[in-house]
Amino acid sequence: MAKFKLDDTDHKILDMLIDNTRTPFTDIAKKLLISAGTVHVRVKKMEEAGIITGSSLSLDYKKLGYAFIAYVGIYLEKTSQTQFVLNRINEIPYVTVAHVTTGKFNLFCKIRAKDTDHAKNVIFQLDDIDGVYRTETMISLEESLNDKKRLMKSIFDEMTS
Amino acid sequence: MAKFKLDDTDHKILDMLIDNTRTPFTDIAKKLLISAGTVHVRVKKMEEAGIITGSSLSLDYKKLGYAFIAYVGIYLEKTSQTQFVLNRINEIPYVTVAHVTTGKFNLFCKIRAKDTDHAKNVIFQLDDIDGVYRTETMISLEESLNDKKRLMKSIFDEMTS
Amino acid sequence: MAKFKLDDTDHKILDMLIDNTRTPFTDIAKKLLISAGTVHVRVKKMEEAGIITGSSLSLDYKKLGYAFIAYVGIYLEKTSQTQFVLNRINEIPYVTVAHVTTGKFNLFCKIRAKDTDHAKNVIFQLDDIDGVYRTETMISLEESLNDKKRLMKSIFDEMTS
Amino acid sequence: MAKFKLDDTDHKILDMLIDNTRTPFTDIAKKLLISAGTVHVRVKKMEEAGIITGSSLSLDYKKLGYAFIAYVGIYLEKTSQTQFVLNRINEIPYVTVAHVTTGKFNLFCKIRAKDTDHAKNVIFQLDDIDGVYRTETMISLEESLNDKKRLMKSIFDEMTS
Amino acid sequence: MAKFKLDDTDHKILDMLIDNTRTPFTDIAKKLLISAGTVHVRVKKMEEAGIITGSSLSLDYKKLGYAFIAYVGIYLEKTSQTQFVLNRINEIPYVTVAHVTTGKFNLFCKIRAKDTDHAKNVIFQLDDIDGVYRTETMISLEESLNDKKRLMKSIFDEMTS
Amino acid sequence: MAKFKLDDTDHKILDMLIDNTRTPFTDIAKKLLISAGTVHVRVKKMEEAGIITGSSLSLDYKKLGYAFIAYVGIYLEKTSQTQFVLNRINEIPYVTVAHVTTGKFNLFCKIRAKDTDHAKNVIFQLDDIDGVYRTETMISLEESLNDKKRLMKSIFDEMTS
Amino acid sequence: MAKFKLDDTDHKILDMLIDNTRTPFTDIAKKLLISAGTVHVRVKKMEEAGIITGSSLSLDYKKLGYAFIAYVGIYLEKTSQTQFVLNRINEIPYVTVAHVTTGKFNLFCKIRAKDTDHAKNVIFQLDDIDGVYRTETMISLEESLNDKKRLMKSIFDEMTS
Amino acid sequence: MAKFKLDDTDHKILDMLIDNTRTPFTDIAKKLLISAGTVHVRVKKMEEAGIITGSSLSLDYKKLGYAFIAYVGIYLEKTSQTQFVLNRINEIPYVTVAHVTTGKFNLFCKIRAKDTDHAKNVIFQLDDIDGVYRTETMISLEESLNDKKRLMKSIFDEMTS
Repeated sequence: MAKFKLDDTDHKILDMLIDNTRTPFTDIAKKLLISAGTVHVRVKKMEEAGIITGSSLSLDYKKLGYAFIAYVGIYLEKTSQTQFVLNRINEIPYVTVAHVTTGKFNLFCKIRAKDTDHAKNVIFQLDDIDGVYRTETMISLEESLNDKKRLMKSIFDEMTS
Repeated sequence: MAKFKLDDTDHKILDMLIDNTRTPFTDIAKKLLISAGTVHVRVKKMEEAGIITGSSLSLDYKKLGYAFIAYVGIYLEKTSQTQFVLNRINEIPYVTVAHVTTGKFNLFCKIRAKDTDHAKNVIFQLDDIDGVYRTETMISLEESLNDKKRLMKSIFDEMTS
Repeated sequence: MAKFKLDDTDHKILDMLIDNTRTPFTDIAKKLLISAGTVHVRVKKMEEAGIITGSSLSLDYKKLGYAFIAYVGIYLEKTSQTQFVLNRINEIPYVTVAHVTTGKFNLFCKIRAKDTDHAKNVIFQLDDIDGVYRTETMISLEESLNDKKRLMKSIFDEMTS
Repeated sequence: MAKFKLDDTDHKILDMLIDNTRTPFTDIAKKLLISAGTVHVRVKKMEEAGIITGSSLSLDYKKLGYAFIAYVGIYLEKTSQTQFVLNRINEIPYVTVAHVTTGKFNLFCKIRAKDTDHAKNVIFQLDDIDGVYRTETMISLEESLNDKKRLMKSIFDEMTS
Repeated sequence: MAKFKLDDTDHKILDMLIDNTRTPFTDIAKKLLISAGTVHVRVKKMEEAGIITGSSLSLDYKKLGYAFIAYVGIYLEKTSQTQFVLNRINEIPYVTVAHVTTGKFNLFCKIRAKDTDHAKNVIFQLDDIDGVYRTETMISLEESLNDKKRLMKSIFDEMTS
Repeated sequence: MAKFKLDDTDHKILDMLIDNTRTPFTDIAKKLLISAGTVHVRVKKMEEAGIITGSSLSLDYKKLGYAFIAYVGIYLEKTSQTQFVLNRINEIPYVTVAHVTTGKFNLFCKIRAKDTDHAKNVIFQLDDIDGVYRTETMISLEESLNDKKRLMKSIFDEMTS
Repeated sequence: MAKFKLDDTDHKILDMLIDNTRTPFTDIAKKLLISAGTVHVRVKKMEEAGIITGSSLSLDYKKLGYAFIAYVGIYLEKTSQTQFVLNRINEIPYVTVAHVTTGKFNLFCKIRAKDTDHAKNVIFQLDDIDGVYRTETMISLEESLNDKKRLMKSIFDEMTS
Repeated sequence: MAKFKLDDTDHKILDMLIDNTRTPFTDIAKKLLISAGTVHVRVKKMEEAGIITGSSLSLDYKKLGYAFIAYVGIYLEKTSQTQFVLNRINEIPYVTVAHVTTGKFNLFCKIRAKDTDHAKNVIFQLDDIDGVYRTETMISLEESLNDKKRLMKSIFDEMTS
């Protein structure tokens, strides 16, 4: 599917941006012995090709008091309600990920909360959405890995070779 | 836990960075009618407080040919092997998230792959790690929501008020 | 139950037809040193006995873009709806097999689809049939075996001896 | 994926072969008001494109005393044994379909047997393959649908339009 | 609870009746060197104490064409319907045992049927009772043991000592 | 399968024996206005045909202090151990029924015990048999139905008509 | 969270009260070579800090005829009914513990009953509460441990050091 | 089983002790217009009959920083290890209750911990006991009821009437 080809320069620019999206283009240019304009052009091109779609902050959720992570499987009454329920879920900021899934659940969500009590409230909010039949919760005891950088590097390696 | 207090200026800076981490500080300064130095100082302070820990690129994985998402529950032979298995998982770039969980699984992972066939290979790699007893896979039919920005905004609102 | 007896000639004819249903009767006759008329009579007899009921094409579904196979377990609201639901299922060409089953499902289907997205639509169509309470999907990562020829040979061996 | 395009003549030939793979080319030619040579050329082309891969007999398994159908889910001890176990399964003619699957089973098979007792023997054969950890069986009470012709017609319609 | 005490003669009479309830009292008397009247008195006493409540024929169900045994777990909509549903079940002669149970089922039944098809009908009859929410069936591949005589002997041994 | 035909006299004899296996043949003869010899001949014939295989006592287990009934599902390590484990089970008199089953269990047993404590011991005995991997127990809260007489009557009706 | 600090005297007082809450303060005072007034002051202080909230009798439930313990998982129709159902549960004295839980159940209770029959009635009472969808029961075969004293000692040790 | 009969005075004494085990006997005597000696004799008698076995402190675990409650189901490798594993569990003070159970678990425990992290450690300690095969955890989101006083009152009412 992915037909876009990266050359060595694209690849090196991406590697630096993966580590820190705020790296100034002039720094990248200096490191790669090219002009800042070239960096700009290359990044633009990759944005236009839809490869890079933006950037996001990384926060220390534990420090911010949001250490509680849970996965919630949702059973719907009817799958025709899927879109309606997803719209309601979208209004709860503590749900950070939601998937339509195979297997026993219709929807599967990841939530971040402050503590057991807060999680209970978020789960009850999900339970009370019209069309939600039941939910089942699995609690994370430790987030051992949350890192897309290795995947990004692996994808870019593949696109260069 | 979170005792750090944000003032209105911190909050506005964060709101702009959430939308685009690459927004130049001079742009932020202009918008908020403060000096670029002030922006710099505020961001530094929030980094030192451990609130902001970095930034990451957002990619369009579908465009890149990595449209297949699955959740894999892992049963270990013994929980004493947890750390060893997590280290092995860490070597597989297609696993982007891993949790130690309650409930029936010992570990719970999210993987991104190219297609059914590639997913099969990643799952088989997980299955073949020493200490992994069995795995169970749930496939995403659609990633309907993947957005931490609403959570970030909600947290920052709370820290300002 | 099966009281029909095959003689050696019937058996050899069947073995050739199993490998290629389009083998001309004259070719079979030449190979077996009998007349084409005899082949014709024997096949007719086996058709009349209801042993052979027809023939079907074999397609390469992967090449045709239909590589995605899933099994869908269906829970009905009431088993009295079984026939009604089966009639609706019969209108979805992507469902190739359907069984009334024991165990936790009321009905169990096999579907062939183009990809994850197409499968989602077929599953949603099943979910939306009146009387269908819920569905549970298991996705095939690889169709490793799909061959009734070994079974046919085994049955015919048994009927000859 | 499927880029092969069918014209109206191809389509009509396929429709006749789907209904009866043994229809002589001369009959098809007469119906479509084209020469038998053309039919031959078109079928050849579709075989070379890998669309048609062969043909198979349809039997009345009930009449033949093989009315018992069951689905067997297999748990392996290690997924590294998958290929080995599939090879052993391939030696049991009563297993007509086998898949590598997601979800709780590693492999999922369809078996045809004479009756409860015969089915027990086939299941015990599967259970006794080295590397098979456990099996779970679901019995068909009625094969309500087993028909790929609707799918074939749907695919060919799509390829023509 | 059981305070009734058996003496050696009671015990020997029971052992003979367990093996064949039709053994004439005169035969028992001869074997035990007591009078037939004594046998009569003892049996009467055990009937009055409620130990023996009657006798039943043993049939060869396989020979009678009733070889198919299944266990059916029943979920009710409300446990207040338990007695009503049991009354309906009582009208289906193919259900030979029914229990109110703990665990996931509300009721748990044993059925005897002629074959897969007949079993399907009995299960559908159960499913169609008002108040029955769903059923789950487990099929017996072989009745390996069905013998209360060992239990009876063990109980009588205990009551004698 | 069952080809044996019952005439009206056979049927009436069976109906009387179902209600009380100890009914003297002379009583049956008087009721049916036939000779005791005829009753004898008919019963003999049905025994030789294998329809009647014997008779068994009915006890009031509650009165005897054996009010506790449980169903135990057994997982084996390997199905090749089935016969060995069944032989061990056969040595435990508190197990009155055992089946080889489909579904998640390999074997499924019914036990009768005195109380919770006694049941625990019987279950532990089952658990400790070599080759038994795990057991799962479902406890009966009430034996609502245990009656084969309705089935017997239904079978005999069918054989007469 | 717990900032209250215990000194050595507090700790020794608590250790004596854990073993017997009725130990007279004069006895404690004599043992610790302090005045009864000091004991009184210390206990008061710990009560005011909310550490000690009261005391409860320990009964021998087996002797009292309440030997039957079961855990009952409750599924609600809607989590919005949680408080209403908890209020109803609170009216059944045989339910001694109730939790709102994650996982498959909405509520999870512990019940004490006299025997199987009494337990059935309590479970039926739970089942009949409006808003209760279903229940699932797990029966205790033996209460092997029920002791908070070790936990109390461990907590107090930690608060002293 | 419980044959001990309470008279009205016993009952009133118990009611006061249930509410506060530390109520001085002189206070009880005053309220009931009997002598303190009588109270003493009655309590002694109930202790000797084994009805009252002691008393325990009630703590506010939340205030003490132990707000996290979980239920842990334990699968053993062999039930013959039950006693050994219970002895090991007995060494972990955070496990306050343990049962031998029917159903899918061999043992079922209640734990109290400080937070998610502490709970993880306690669960890992359970997992690492020799003979423990796996554990499954269900987390309490809220302890809504923990009160044996209603049960005690109900039992005593019954013993008086």
